[in-house]
Amino acid sequence: MTGPLSPLISPASVAILGASDDPARIGGRPLAYLRAAGFAGQIYPVNPKRQTVQGLPAYARVADLPTAPDAAIVALPAALVENAVTELAERGARACVIFSSGFSEVGETAQQDRIAAIARDAGMRLLGPNCLGVFDVPSRFYASFTTTLDRGTPTEGNLSIVSQSGAFGSHLYFLARQRGLGMRSWITTGNEADVTVAECLEHFAQDPGTKVIMAYAEGFRDGDRLVAALEAARQAGKPVVFMKVGRSEIGAAAASSHTAALAGADAVCDAVLRQYGAHRARTTQELIDIAYAASSGALPAGRRLGIVTISGGVGVLMTDEASDQGLDVSPMPASAQAALKARLPFAGVRNPIDITGQAFNDPDLLRDNLDFVLAQGGYDAVAAFLTTVPGSAANRAPMRDALQAVRTAHPKFPLILSMVVPDDLRREYEAMGYAVFDDPSAAVAAIAGMARLREAFARSAPAAGSRGSAEALPPGALDEQDAKRLLAAAGLPVPDEHLATTPEESVAAWRACERPVALKLVSPDIAHKTEVGGVVLGLDDEAAILDAHRAILARAREHAPSARVSGVLVSPMEAGAAAGGIETIIGVMRDPAFGPVVMLGLGGVLVEVMGDVTFRRAPFDTDEAMRMIAELRGAAVFDGVRGRPPADTAALAEALAALSRFADAHADEIESIDVNPFLVRARGQGAVALDALIVRRADTAEG
Amino acid sequence: MTGPLSPLISPASVAILGASDDPARIGGRPLAYLRAAGFAGQIYPVNPKRQTVQGLPAYARVADLPTAPDAAIVALPAALVENAVTELAERGARACVIFSSGFSEVGETAQQDRIAAIARDAGMRLLGPNCLGVFDVPSRFYASFTTTLDRGTPTEGNLSIVSQSGAFGSHLYFLARQRGLGMRSWITTGNEADVTVAECLEHFAQDPGTKVIMAYAEGFRDGDRLVAALEAARQAGKPVVFMKVGRSEIGAAAASSHTAALAGADAVCDAVLRQYGAHRARTTQELIDIAYAASSGALPAGRRLGIVTISGGVGVLMTDEASDQGLDVSPMPASAQAALKARLPFAGVRNPIDITGQAFNDPDLLRDNLDFVLAQGGYDAVAAFLTTVPGSAANRAPMRDALQAVRTAHPKFPLILSMVVPDDLRREYEAMGYAVFDDPSAAVAAIAGMARLREAFARSAPAAGSRGSAEALPPGALDEQDAKRLLAAAGLPVPDEHLATTPEESVAAWRACERPVALKLVSPDIAHKTEVGGVVLGLDDEAAILDAHRAILARAREHAPSARVSGVLVSPMEAGAAAGGIETIIGVMRDPAFGPVVMLGLGGVLVEVMGDVTFRRAPFDTDEAMRMIAELRGAAVFDGVRGRPPADTAALAEALAALSRFADAHADEIESIDVNPFLVRARGQGAVALDALIVRRADTAEG
Repeated sequence: MTGPLSPLISPASVAILGASDDPARIGGRPLAYLRAAGFAGQIYPVNPKRQTVQGLPAYARVADLPTAPDAAIVALPAALVENAVTELAERGARACVIFSSGFSEVGETAQQDRIAAIARDAGMRLLGPNCLGVFDVPSRFYASFTTTLDRGTPTEGNLSIVSQSGAFGSHLYFLARQRGLGMRSWITTGNEADVTVAECLEHFAQDPGTKVIMAYAEGFRDGDRLVAALEAARQAGKPVVFMKVGRSEIGAAAASSHTAALAGADAVCDAVLRQYGAHRARTTQELIDIAYAASSGALPAGRRLGIVTISGGVGVLMTDEASDQGLDVSPMPASAQAALKARLPFAGVRNPIDITGQAFNDPDLLRDNLDFVLAQGGYDAVAAFLTTVPGSAANRAPMRDALQAVRTAHPKFPLILSMVVPDDLRREYEAMGYAVFDDPSAAVAAIAGMARLREAFARSAPAAGSRGSAEALPPGALDEQDAKRLLAAAGLPVPDEHLATTPEESVAAWRACERPVALKLVSPDIAHKTEVGGVVLGLDDEAAILDAHRAILARAREHAPSARVSGVLVSPMEAGAAAGGIETIIGVMRDPAFGPVVMLGLGGVLVEVMGDVTFRRAPFDTDEAMRMIAELRGAAVFDGVRGRPPADTAALAEALAALSRFADAHADEIESIDVNPFLVRARGQGAVALDALIVRRADTAEG
Repeated sequence: MTGPLSPLISPASVAILGASDDPARIGGRPLAYLRAAGFAGQIYPVNPKRQTVQGLPAYARVADLPTAPDAAIVALPAALVENAVTELAERGARACVIFSSGFSEVGETAQQDRIAAIARDAGMRLLGPNCLGVFDVPSRFYASFTTTLDRGTPTEGNLSIVSQSGAFGSHLYFLARQRGLGMRSWITTGNEADVTVAECLEHFAQDPGTKVIMAYAEGFRDGDRLVAALEAARQAGKPVVFMKVGRSEIGAAAASSHTAALAGADAVCDAVLRQYGAHRARTTQELIDIAYAASSGALPAGRRLGIVTISGGVGVLMTDEASDQGLDVSPMPASAQAALKARLPFAGVRNPIDITGQAFNDPDLLRDNLDFVLAQGGYDAVAAFLTTVPGSAANRAPMRDALQAVRTAHPKFPLILSMVVPDDLRREYEAMGYAVFDDPSAAVAAIAGMARLREAFARSAPAAGSRGSAEALPPGALDEQDAKRLLAAAGLPVPDEHLATTPEESVAAWRACERPVALKLVSPDIAHKTEVGGVVLGLDDEAAILDAHRAILARAREHAPSARVSGVLVSPMEAGAAAGGIETIIGVMRDPAFGPVVMLGLGGVLVEVMGDVTFRRAPFDTDEAMRMIAELRGAAVFDGVRGRPPADTAALAEALAALSRFADAHADEIESIDVNPFLVRARGQGAVALDALIVRRADTAEG
């Protein structure tokens, strides 16, 4: 395919600056790899000290090249890079790959910024610096010094890898190769002076030859581009398996609000990867496993998993994993169970389906019963545990033929095998279209990963936003009443409250609402009113209300004599958690890469201790909000426990989606929003924002 | 070694009933394997239809054997097994291995019970039926038909495996073999008519040639024996890596449909494995990984992990895993950091320690810097990520020499390598004493597993108990007051309460305690008093107390006219959770395999939703109770959150230990105990059992 990165990935010609005659040296390896692979385009070694390099005529300077090279490899000391990039730009190269280190990774950003500017001005794409380069199997282009290429030219396939880290990128490629995965393109982005992981993802999403994408990153600067790339891959139905390191980092520095304090940068990245349909892997093994399984065939259309074993115990083990992974291990239909029982009296015919060791004595039984489960079980995927027996001398050929027959009858069925067989035999099974796992639990986990990818692919396009598109907020700091008015206008439910400027107005407001009330100080200058004694709850007689109103104002004056005070908010008391409502915390924080992010958590000290919160990038729709709610570890509390009624999660989802649209529309103005508590009542009775705080971004605080 | 299982594992002679001339058949394989391995003892094929079997003279009947065989293999149809066992018992065989299926696994328990009885009466040990047999590498004894032995005689080593499942046992052996682990003994127990997983564990714990034990079970019938075996292995410092399937509810249901074993609730099995120092693996891969790492050398003496990489990003990835696993990734001492920085200006010198790709250009740097970190870093273990480079042609020899030098200088240091190299080179590293992992996260997880094993080995012996040793409980059902009196005598803190039989006595009790009180119905016949309106809280004036007392009695009469009523318990109100106390639930349940088990959970609906509870087999000491407390996912709540003081976990631990001793001493009489809530006050202020219920076992209910 052609695209902005084509000159970098599949150029027609390449110059090598710092080309070495020694094929073991950094400047020698790419040339050796290019020639070993049979790169068809022109190769121009540039080396002022030599006439030839590895047998090819060498050029003393870039200016001497007979034509402008499509791409150039820069394998020079850092001090020489700026001059080289200048010469390449002048000569008209379209892309360059800079291996050299000694730039931003050691704090030397100035030179890096200059070479990026030179390249940008010349319209030349730049990979690196401090990277291990790129290779592309179909075009036989090898602009890398990774020693993993020592061990042979990669097999062509449909896996593309992009990695910020060269070392880890090499490790991944090599593990993928060992696992039998064929390669398309491999890119390491290093310091990302120009080309980023996100842009490479975007390229792979559009590249027809790429079917599965592996990515590795340490962090993201351009969140919108990453989101666009993930979304492009999702819409193209291409699995993205992502390793983002830094899970354990505690969140961003000074937290200006409760919401921001609960948000780690990593939790946001995690949410974004999930929201836009990537599979985030926790380990290298998982990264390889999911990519391997996804390369092998069709993704399961749903979560119904049939488990077929010749060992009941391993069936239980696989069921454990399926349960952890949220797969549905329902029995086969009763008619299918009865039919299988009639064939195999000693079989376990529910699920796991134990076809017993007899399958090894009679491969026809294996074939027929697997075929039966695939055809009659009603499953979206099947995992079959076959032990080591298919690799034994006596069973090798008959079992392979039996499983070939099953595959022929069900060419697209997601059927994964767990067995330990010699490598050559495993390759034969892979050629039939099977993924093969040593570890039965890993086979089940891979099916679950594929099912989640497929679910993500099936979702409708995310809600479109247009950052900062709304009318500006009213000028100045925002008090609770302002915040509630704005959120109410945005579609969030708020209580029917009255701002009283005198004690008598408070009493009148209490009489009007005909139930106990809370009185709350309203001041744009006092964000944390509880801490200054600015809140009194549960008032239900005149004298108490008069007293409370006066006391609140007195404490405000004492605490902050210069604070502006708008009055006292008279708010009807909610029955609260005791009456079946569930207290949640919803809010918005600004992520430096991804912009406004909506948070949901359950209220209460214990859940705060457990950090049970979840995030989504704004904006999103109510379907996405429902998935967000379901992600809470304590989500079962919404179903009603200990005789409490189920909660109105639909109202919560609508509020989250509305909050996300509001946050997106005011992205440039808002630093954070806390709605705490946001009370979710019993189903059908809605929800309500009991308190709200909107903090403006510092530079827009005065509108 | 000799022991009760010696005739089964390393017999001097063996008879094979159902011996086949075809080495591919079930009755032929053991003979072929025995001869291929060079078993030195007599082998007696028994087959009435042949003169010779695989070249050996055959015997028509057991009675014809020239001597009593130490062991016998029974490879006959189920219908012939009982007669065979009888003949073997009569001939004086000391052990028999029954491959045949068709017994309890298909509901045919009667014949199985009979053969077990015949063997028991004759003092003959019996393995199976429905098992894959046993092998022992040092004695060259192969009484198995597993096809994994087709692929060569196992290498001798110090890993022993016991598996209830033959298929999974074979799978495990083969994966261990692929991973380069040498074998000692391998036993599959099948239906466990006699020999159980627990007894085999016990054997391996005592066997000097076994250093690491792998075990697989679906459930346990004899919990005490399992505990004794685990404790023996722990005291011998032998890692036990355990796969117990049936973690999930669905999985457990599948387990009970497959096996005759009475599976204890999985949470209890999990607690027991932890309590007695085994590593419970969740996946096959983890099982192999931990056994592999533990075989490679010394276990880390603590949790301080140094991470050495040549890639910053992978260092972060490994730190993520270390953090998940509870390892301590502290920096090196400042002096060591300064010294390393002086050697390697671009190195990351805190932790992870990034010695940069330069290590590949100069293996001396790799050697010196690894040596430096081992000597100066202050770590208990180091994980080094070395990519694929050590396997490349140019680096292979120099890097191996560098790492050999490091190992020579630090022969026992727990240093694990993550790299991908060819198998032959990996074997060389393993021979030097390194464990090698493809996946850097798996390397870190293995170190964490080893550190936990070592911690378990270092613990003092568990509290000794003697089930049911105490004086009997008072006769009849036990009401709240009885329960509290018994628990108080056992050492649990209870409130200073008074049983009032008249309303006036309630008032007097309230006056005496000088604070608000709760009134609670006391009736041995009404266990759930709250549900019948038998509890009124927060009373602090005379009229209200008189009213409440009468109302409680009236409601009790209305609800259960025939219930015996002892009176009303007047209990001083606790300040409760609002004042900084933390509500927990502690209790005791009877596990069918493990007897009385103590439970701890946090109070509150949300935590109930999350199932945050933990268990221990009774009895145990306060150290164990402290570990139990720390295991709760919400344990941080005890440290004090939102300005609350830390809680008195010492008092909680004392109560748990006291409860465990009480439960053990009354093991035969008590079905369950609930202390809910058990309120834990601020540190130094103790704790108190606010409610208590003891339910007797049905058969002892009337003493």
